This record gives sequence, structure tokens and C-alpha cells, in this order.
Amino acid sequence: MKIKEFVERSIGRWRSQRSAHHLAFGHFEAIQSVIDIVAISPDDPAVVDLCKSYNIDTNAAVSPFRMTWDGQSDWDENEVLKGSCILVPVPDPDDPNRGKLLRDQGYAETMAAAGNYYLTEDDTFVLVTQYDRAAAEEKIWFVNPNVRCRVSLIKTSAGTGIVTASFSSEIRQEIKNSK
Amino acid sequence: MKIKEFVERSIGRWRSQRSAHHLAFGHFEAIQSVIDIVAISPDDPAVVDLCKSYNIDTNAAVSPFRMTWDGQSDWDENEVLKGSCILVPVPDPDDPNRGKLLRDQGYAETMAAAGNYYLTEDDTFVLVTQYDRAAAEEKIWFVNPNVRCRVSLIKTSAGTGIVTASFSSEIRQEIKNSK
Repeated sequence: MKIKEFVERSIGRWRSQRSAHHLAFGHFEAIQSVIDIVAISPDDPAVVDLCKSYNIDTNAAVSPFRMTWDGQSDWDENEVLKGSCILVPVPDPDDPNRGKLLRDQGYAETMAAAGNYYLTEDDTFVLVTQYDRAAAEEKIWFVNPNVRCRVSLIKTSAGTGIVTASFSSEIRQEIKNSK
Repeated sequence: MKIKEFVERSIGRWRSQRSAHHLAFGHFEAIQSVIDIVAISPDDPAVVDLCKSYNIDTNAAVSPFRMTWDGQSDWDENEVLKGSCILVPVPDPDDPNRGKLLRDQGYAETMAAAGNYYLTEDDTFVLVTQYDRAAAEEKIWFVNPNVRCRVSLIKTSAGTGIVTASFSSEIRQEIKNSK
């Protein structure tokens, strides 16, 4: 599977059940959210700006998209789990199964981040992102066209210790009426 | 990675945090358990019997092991999550990355079951088991020598609908004193 196809299959509204395991103290956190993944134009000013900030030619970007999430955790009901970011895949010209994923807001820290992705032979999307004080590893795969699984690991920056392991099961939702 | 190495790395005591997502009704279940994985001899009568019941030559068995678990769920505290089974990998002679995994007690139904496994290029163990009224798909991989992740999907027997998606993070424990 190519990144283009992976993004195409991801477009839509998803109802996500996420469990986060905080490993050091054996805590379970349950998060329910709605995730919208929407294709955006490679000419969108936000895409152009993001490419520019990484000195990447806009023409190298493939299937940019916007991800928006709105969720609730059972841990802290007052916490706002709401946000949006733009993601821009930039395949490696020498290996179409690998590349960079630019995003204007990271997952472990709220700043721009570029991760390295690859697609495995069994169509799992793997993303590794290095932050200042942490590293994130995500695996996403489709069980069928309407169910995605996602495992996210937050590691210490050295990459050996695991701080949080979380798992999302995401089910495609019908989007009603105009949108 | 070969199955022999995968089993060797799995030997030990693991503290497991498991989250089960019951997809139809969006329920989260949290299970904490201790899992012991112990190598057993290919000559063990239980291994010989299990091979015999599948008409498999005992010499084809590689690294048989016993898995014992003892857990507690937050869903039904009276439920006994305790058990033990014997697992026997039988690699395909033509493809060492694939094979059958025999077990004397299945996961989705408590009866003997033979699943088909393969190891991916990034060392994920994938097991697909067909039961009478369900199918199970498991993925297990090591994040480091002391942390394993496991995603288990219980599907309808046709394999299209997902009933339960669960995720375990497993941390290796020191085994103290005699055992």
C-alpha cells in the first residue's frame, strides 16, 4: 500500500475508543473521542507554510490532510482533549514506502514536528517521531475498511523506557447531512 | 527473527495491563494479570499428545512452552481469569517465518485450537485462529527486551465484523527466589 492509498482510506469520521496504560504506576485511562480526517489541497497556505518551514519543496507533498479530534477522558473530565493539526506526507523519492510526515502540532509536545514513517509489507503505517524530551512510535493498520487500530508508545528520549502505551480502536461513522 | 528466538525472548514472568474494547457498546474493560511463560520439553507427554491429535510429527515441533495467567477484571470481579495452556509452534518446512501454533486450549473458546502464524519483517508475530463461531487475530511484538505489546481482535467467524479489540502492555518481572 502506498501512503496515498493509506490516507485515502483514512478520510472520514471515526469514533475512537482509546486506552492509555501509564506503565510506571499501572494506571488505565479511557478516552472516547470523535476524529475527523479531511483531505486538504497541497496548495493550502498551511501546507505551503509547513513545507517551507522544513525546506521541503511543496511539490514533494502527497495527500496532505487535516485531523481534528474532540474527546473525553475518564481521568480528568475537565481536561480539554480537543485539537486539530495538519499532516503532510513527503515520500522518500528513492523508496515510496518510506518518508517524512510533517505536522504543525506534535502529539507528545505541542509544537511542530517531523516524523519518519514507513509502510510494512502487511500495510501497517509506522511513524517514529523524536521530540526534545520524548520519542513517539505509532502503528496504525486497517482491520477492514471501517475499523482502524492504532498503538502509540511514548518513550523516553533515549528510546529505551516506555512511559505510556496506548491503543485506539477506531470505527468509521456515517457523516449525516451536509458537511 | 525466527519463532525459536521469539519464544526465547518471551520466556519469563510478565505483568500485563490489558484493555478490552467491546466495540458494539463502546465499553472499556481493564484487566490486570500476571503471565508466566515457561519452556517445556518437546518430549513432554502433553506436547506429544497435542501433536498426535493434529497428526503432526513431534519432531516438527519447535520451542514448545506453557503459558499460565492469573488476572482480575474491573468488569466482573467474581470472574475467574485464571488458566494455563500448552503452545506448540510447528514451522512450515518450506518457509521458516510461517507455521502452525497448536494449543490445547483456545482463547475465544475453551477447546484445542490450531492457528496459523507468521513473523513479519519487523519482527511482529501474527497469529490467526479460526474457531467455530469466531476468528481471532493476535499481533505480538517486543518494544524492547522487557516490554511486549499484544493486540487481539475477536472477529465474527466470517472475519469481517470485529467484536472485541484488546491491547496488552506486558512488562517483564523479576522472579524472586525459588520457583
